[in-house]
Amino acid sequence: MPIIEMHLLTGRTIEQKRRVAAEVAQAASRALDCPLDTVRILITEHSTEEFSVGGVTAEMRAQQRQAGAAQPRTETL
Amino acid sequence: MPIIEMHLLTGRTIEQKRRVAAEVAQAASRALDCPLDTVRILITEHSTEEFSVGGVTAEMRAQQRQAGAAQPRTETL
Amino acid sequence: MPIIEMHLLTGRTIEQKRRVAAEVAQAASRALDCPLDTVRILITEHSTEEFSVGGVTAEMRAQQRQAGAAQPRTETL
Amino acid sequence: MPIIEMHLLTGRTIEQKRRVAAEVAQAASRALDCPLDTVRILITEHSTEEFSVGGVTAEMRAQQRQAGAAQPRTETL
Amino acid sequence: MPIIEMHLLTGRTIEQKRRVAAEVAQAASRALDCPLDTVRILITEHSTEEFSVGGVTAEMRAQQRQAGAAQPRTETL
Amino acid sequence: MPIIEMHLLTGRTIEQKRRVAAEVAQAASRALDCPLDTVRILITEHSTEEFSVGGVTAEMRAQQRQAGAAQPRTETL
Repeated sequence: MPIIEMHLLTGRTIEQKRRVAAEVAQAASRALDCPLDTVRILITEHSTEEFSVGGVTAEMRAQQRQAGAAQPRTETL
Repeated sequence: MPIIEMHLLTGRTIEQKRRVAAEVAQAASRALDCPLDTVRILITEHSTEEFSVGGVTAEMRAQQRQAGAAQPRTETL
Repeated sequence: MPIIEMHLLTGRTIEQKRRVAAEVAQAASRALDCPLDTVRILITEHSTEEFSVGGVTAEMRAQQRQAGAAQPRTETL
Repeated sequence: MPIIEMHLLTGRTIEQKRRVAAEVAQAASRALDCPLDTVRILITEHSTEEFSVGGVTAEMRAQQRQAGAAQPRTETL
Repeated sequence: MPIIEMHLLTGRTIEQKRRVAAEVAQAASRALDCPLDTVRILITEHSTEEFSVGGVTAEMRAQQRQAGAAQPRTETL
Repeated sequence: MPIIEMHLLTGRTIEQKRRVAAEVAQAASRALDCPLDTVRILITEHSTEEFSVGGVTAEMRAQQRQAGAAQPRTETL
């Protein structure tokens, strides 16, 4: 029955969404030893102003980085 | 206090959303014997590329079906 | 495809959980005009210290009520 | 590790989203005594037809209020 | 930033939980081309009375199957 | 209407849960300029085997740390 909700930053292509759905479903099916068809995945996208780490949104962090501040890159969050 | 999150494929009309909110709230209130006004419902819509069963997105399944493959219809997922 | 997450306070009987699963699934199926078997429901229970309104947990509210304070009853939240 | 999902009605400005991310992260960090950088927040917005109380969507409630009916204001839900 | 919530029926061993966490994280990292360390997974378990398909809980379905009724097996849901 | 789901590792005391509910609700109310009583918070706890970063559960990480490996501490995840 695995039901999986996946939260991603916006901007993934359709190909990426299809690929992650396929690979994650196979991984869950294999690791849990359950039929592939029982794995359901829901993707929810969040804009860079709707995801934050330590109170700083991904968008703010990208702007700080562009301004030269030494910040971890968004994709490492 | 029931708080209900409902995940739907995109494409429902406003009338459908109002109807499902009304009927589900009444059903929960009746079955749990709690005041109707305590039932809160949040609807989140997902596109056909953001919902998958067995690693195959609803969109892929619809395309395969149109191509003649014998697949279960999206609405049966 | 409706996937429904239902958050409840702990303490419901098995009969109540079965009844709410049946009635909510039927309501969603009827209102959305989709097959009953496509409705999946996940129930998550929260203790009275894990649900709060306005920063006051359900347990605190119940205690205040017992102490005579004029508070809305938990079940009305 | 706190991971926080925040459901809001649509219509908040970027400034409001940044402010709520900052203030909620600081509050969680302080109350749980964990490093600020471990607090992640995901915001999901719902339209006024996708949030309902007692089976009445926020939009319906706003319309009823405009029509003169004595209803609680949306922001009090 | 992928944050993944995985809903499972209770009863998985620690080994299964570790395996599914490892394999799903690797699959998401590979498919989305993001660093492995950015993938967070939250597992929530639900009892067989807290998951239902078509209004019938997994526990009811298991009981019906034991009673000889021709029902799909729980693990195929 | 803010509805907030907060995912925490197990082990917080009742006092901590009450404090985080109070402080987060106040922060959200202040930042969003909405009445305090409209903020609802649901806490879900996850065991150290049910939360993972990069495919490594919090429990595995704690064990590796005890074994002397140079790993970030669980509370910094």
